[in-house]
Amino acid sequence: MKRLVQCVPNFSEGINKKTIEAIVAPLKNKAGFTLIGYEADPDYNRTVVTLLGDPEAMMEPLCLFIQKAIEKIDLRKHQGNHPRMGAVDVVPFIPIKGIKMEECITYAKQLAEKVSTFQIPVFLYGKAATKPERESLPAIRQGEFEGMKEKLLQPEWIPDYGPRERHETFGVVAIGARMPLIAFNIDLMSPDKEIASTIAKTIRKSSGGFQYVQAGPAYLNQRGHIQVTMNILDYTKNPIYRLLEMVKMEAKRYLIDVPSCELIGLVPRKALEESVFYYLERDQKNKSKFSIAEIAELAVFYLGLRDFNPGKIIESHLKE
Amino acid sequence: MKRLVQCVPNFSEGINKKTIEAIVAPLKNKAGFTLIGYEADPDYNRTVVTLLGDPEAMMEPLCLFIQKAIEKIDLRKHQGNHPRMGAVDVVPFIPIKGIKMEECITYAKQLAEKVSTFQIPVFLYGKAATKPERESLPAIRQGEFEGMKEKLLQPEWIPDYGPRERHETFGVVAIGARMPLIAFNIDLMSPDKEIASTIAKTIRKSSGGFQYVQAGPAYLNQRGHIQVTMNILDYTKNPIYRLLEMVKMEAKRYLIDVPSCELIGLVPRKALEESVFYYLERDQKNKSKFSIAEIAELAVFYLGLRDFNPGKIIESHLKE
Repeated sequence: MKRLVQCVPNFSEGINKKTIEAIVAPLKNKAGFTLIGYEADPDYNRTVVTLLGDPEAMMEPLCLFIQKAIEKIDLRKHQGNHPRMGAVDVVPFIPIKGIKMEECITYAKQLAEKVSTFQIPVFLYGKAATKPERESLPAIRQGEFEGMKEKLLQPEWIPDYGPRERHETFGVVAIGARMPLIAFNIDLMSPDKEIASTIAKTIRKSSGGFQYVQAGPAYLNQRGHIQVTMNILDYTKNPIYRLLEMVKMEAKRYLIDVPSCELIGLVPRKALEESVFYYLERDQKNKSKFSIAEIAELAVFYLGLRDFNPGKIIESHLKE
Repeated sequence: MKRLVQCVPNFSEGINKKTIEAIVAPLKNKAGFTLIGYEADPDYNRTVVTLLGDPEAMMEPLCLFIQKAIEKIDLRKHQGNHPRMGAVDVVPFIPIKGIKMEECITYAKQLAEKVSTFQIPVFLYGKAATKPERESLPAIRQGEFEGMKEKLLQPEWIPDYGPRERHETFGVVAIGARMPLIAFNIDLMSPDKEIASTIAKTIRKSSGGFQYVQAGPAYLNQRGHIQVTMNILDYTKNPIYRLLEMVKMEAKRYLIDVPSCELIGLVPRKALEESVFYYLERDQKNKSKFSIAEIAELAVFYLGLRDFNPGKIIESHLKE
């Protein structure tokens, strides 16, 4: 069986198309893995790249990709709505099929070692973390690019690889291994970021909410409204529909509409199916055996997903 | 200023009125504190007593109360829908006004020492716990009356006071100190306890839900329907309305009505006010300065509280 890993590097440019294309170029049309897509968000000023395939084949292109980011991005001039600490901010390896988490950890360490030779400090995170305090990406990233200079001097934040000094223009990168997560953003028709912040607190673990949810506020300049942006670390425990319905419920007290939402990167079929089933049961509709295209269509209808297509469902790429 | 402590002993009899009256008798008409009420639940076969006043004055009457329970209750014959390990199952001291948590812990230990002289094993819990594993009441109670014989033999479950042997008919008691909690039960118009269990899991911390919620299922024989029964350990983080709306949302997929709910024991005014405000804002009604009676009325209306009255709001007893 083929070994399939999903790798989702995030880099800190979401506006300049030429720069984005230059950085992504080394990942295009390579043997052994597929560039599924790259989603640039101008408000976040960040691009999320999704690769799927053999991790062995990804190693060299990932190094070239990171070298391009060193060349093209100067974080001292970077502003965006998403927290960041590096030009390439985070590179997770995610086991999908025929591969164990342990192997993904090994590939994370391999890449970390190579990247450290570019004079970039690297933290291992997620399942690859070397200390419990480094499992959480937000904990590592706290202080962001601006705070990393001092953070690296603290004895508890000595990087796992590379120099103990922030790269002047690139910053610091986290490389790790983790289970698939759902990157889910909910649109709220208001310009008031404070409200997105208050609602994010009602659902996220760190403020008393759901165990497997990280969430925060964002204001989307280009679209002119706020978002609650979240990672769902375990969608079997905290399914998409529950978070959407919770946010809708909270938004009612502010008389704010919640017309749409978006999934960033790939999503497992089961995660969508489970949420679609909630609405089908609620509305007393039949649950038959749906195709991937049907699941996608139902998810768009019931969750109000925008910019979605069946290619964003992992299983659409797993035809053997 | 007067020192005000709330003390909420729970005992394992909720059916036999004569027994309940006999056990509660030593707490009636005493100087220094008030018996606010006692709520017997026949389905849980359990009574929740609420005292408010000077903890010093409660000590002797509480000992007489526990002695009555030793005399009147035989847990070997006890059945009910609520987990229990003792004839008197749990006795928490809760600081309300003019008193610190530390003092409540001291009173818990004083009572524990006295009770142990009746040959009853006592675990200190909550803020009075002597080990982190004993902070959580459900963790101490796991195994219930039936399992305590063996549990007490385990080195990690040596009781804090009293013999290392289960009292043959009384069992074991937990005495402790804690912040006010909200005991909140939501009625679901279905006889299917499995559904209550599934919904309880969506909201409770131990299954991935809210950080400050303990929840489980119950079937109420006398009323003929199920309940999601919960403790909210921090209502500022996980307010009542949010849990009610979540449970209603989940119930929709089973096409089940959620017509009512109940608060057991006393509730802080703020906890109700905060939830009433959600509905007033949602419905674009005025929020004025409400009296306690008005807050009670609004809470009954918006939350569907049954068996409620302003006397269940702590502040109604704090007129100086």
